[in-house]
Amino acid sequence: MIIIDGCQYANWSEKIFREMHAGGVAAVHVTICYHEDFRETVKNIADWNRMFERFPDLIVPGRTAEDVRSAHATGKTAIIFGFQNCSPIEDDISLVEICHQLGARFMQLSYNNQSLLATGCYEDNDTGITRMGRQVIAEMNRVGLVVDMSHSGERSTLEAIEISDRPIAITHANPASWHPALRNKSDKVLKVLGDSGGMLGFSVYPHHLKDKSACTLESFCAMVARTADLMGIDHIGIGSDLCQDQPDSVVEWMRVGRWTKDIDYGEGSASDAGFPPMPPWFGGNLDFGNIADGLRTFGFADTDVEKVMGGNWLRFFEDSFRAIA
Amino acid sequence: MIIIDGCQYANWSEKIFREMHAGGVAAVHVTICYHEDFRETVKNIADWNRMFERFPDLIVPGRTAEDVRSAHATGKTAIIFGFQNCSPIEDDISLVEICHQLGARFMQLSYNNQSLLATGCYEDNDTGITRMGRQVIAEMNRVGLVVDMSHSGERSTLEAIEISDRPIAITHANPASWHPALRNKSDKVLKVLGDSGGMLGFSVYPHHLKDKSACTLESFCAMVARTADLMGIDHIGIGSDLCQDQPDSVVEWMRVGRWTKDIDYGEGSASDAGFPPMPPWFGGNLDFGNIADGLRTFGFADTDVEKVMGGNWLRFFEDSFRAIA
Repeated sequence: MIIIDGCQYANWSEKIFREMHAGGVAAVHVTICYHEDFRETVKNIADWNRMFERFPDLIVPGRTAEDVRSAHATGKTAIIFGFQNCSPIEDDISLVEICHQLGARFMQLSYNNQSLLATGCYEDNDTGITRMGRQVIAEMNRVGLVVDMSHSGERSTLEAIEISDRPIAITHANPASWHPALRNKSDKVLKVLGDSGGMLGFSVYPHHLKDKSACTLESFCAMVARTADLMGIDHIGIGSDLCQDQPDSVVEWMRVGRWTKDIDYGEGSASDAGFPPMPPWFGGNLDFGNIADGLRTFGFADTDVEKVMGGNWLRFFEDSFRAIA
Repeated sequence: MIIIDGCQYANWSEKIFREMHAGGVAAVHVTICYHEDFRETVKNIADWNRMFERFPDLIVPGRTAEDVRSAHATGKTAIIFGFQNCSPIEDDISLVEICHQLGARFMQLSYNNQSLLATGCYEDNDTGITRMGRQVIAEMNRVGLVVDMSHSGERSTLEAIEISDRPIAITHANPASWHPALRNKSDKVLKVLGDSGGMLGFSVYPHHLKDKSACTLESFCAMVARTADLMGIDHIGIGSDLCQDQPDSVVEWMRVGRWTKDIDYGEGSASDAGFPPMPPWFGGNLDFGNIADGLRTFGFADTDVEKVMGGNWLRFFEDSFRAIA
């Protein structure tokens, strides 16, 4: 079974890479920016380059599906770069291809707020994909940079699916019908996403879970089963949103960036401002087996468990990461 | 016969790409910066990305020897990026790998003046490779970015050859013993360069030629023959330094950049400030056949002509552009 995680933002370290290895994780889509501009993003990529140099026996750059297969075969983890926001391309469409050349394979069009490209999920008014957004989606389609709408609003997400010539992804979110968070997605969005060939990665971040940190594995697996019925078993995977070993200052950076002088609590609150504790059945990269076991116990066939745990992401990578000739 | 030019800085256009095609040029090492910082260099790369998109039947990115062979087989020209200065990496060694990821394959350690890495050929005092220069050479060796010392001073060049674990290049210069320009190289440098497995590209830029624009093809070919005796027939190629269709404002940018408020005339003079006229036997990409014919007429064997016109560069690319595993 190939295990692929559709989103993590950990405080990366040899310890975590060894856990990925021990947990048999073949690939992780890692967030390398939230609000960073182009030059800051290059710095983050350079930091990853140093990690690839330091830990060649544990991690390798993940730029193609073949890189993931090769990592799986050699017991390593392919690291796939993604942006949670469009800040790295600033106002310059030419940076889409430059970022792809530097290894980026996912980019969200907006992160909670309005961006130059689309509306975020916390804005009161979602005006859909902007003029520049349409141009950037076409360019992302051309070079093979996946549109990710995890933190975007409903209208923007539906328009992105419609406008994009290639299937898009919501790398980390759950159905709002299961847990009504602003970050979770309506059944309408999920149905259209599945019908268009797109992918949903199920989040294990407690703010996206029914009963949050107390969410049971059975409840999670029931939600997966219901979503499989809605979207099709071929269009779902894991996108844990694992933020392992991060200090709470990082969740503040994620929410606040440089866009406000006040504190914004995002999915948290003043009394619950930090990272929430993870549910007991998923604390990190050693625990993907728990989810697979839970799915089997719930009644998923082995072949379907393999699809959800990584097979679907691998097929999606195969179809998505290459430039259109 | 495979034709490769080891250095050009033209005012790129469809016209010139069509001339490359008509002239059977399989690859050109093109200068993409003189004094640009990192962000400005990214802009120049993005401009090339647009040209690759616009003219896919004429030009392709040249990142490996295989790209050059493929271009040759399909009648296209592989475009290999190079920097005439180390300004794109600013003071940040991590940008060496980032620039290589973006396609750079040659970088000069200094351009006429002192840089953070080495001394330029117009400085009065050459203090050799700097502390940062030693680190950057090691990093260039690691990722497969070729050290080019075309515009560096004698001591710096000798030290770069000594320090570098991989052979280096002087992509565009001629022997000073033939024409004593500051930009041309001593027999001592050329001998050590050849012995170390490095490459010299012969310049056709008039300031580097005996009798300048009036230099005869026979004199040029006699110089090639003498240099082959000095360095070995396997270590020489063409590096025309062709600056086709450029306005004179560009030669001023090359010489002056942003480092002086005065005008520096470089190899020219106040009365001869612009680009000099090219010799009659080499005006552009249609004329490589003239040089090949000249070499044959001078007495070079066909196999040696093939080496000088491109075979040696191709072998050098094969050995130089890959990261060390």
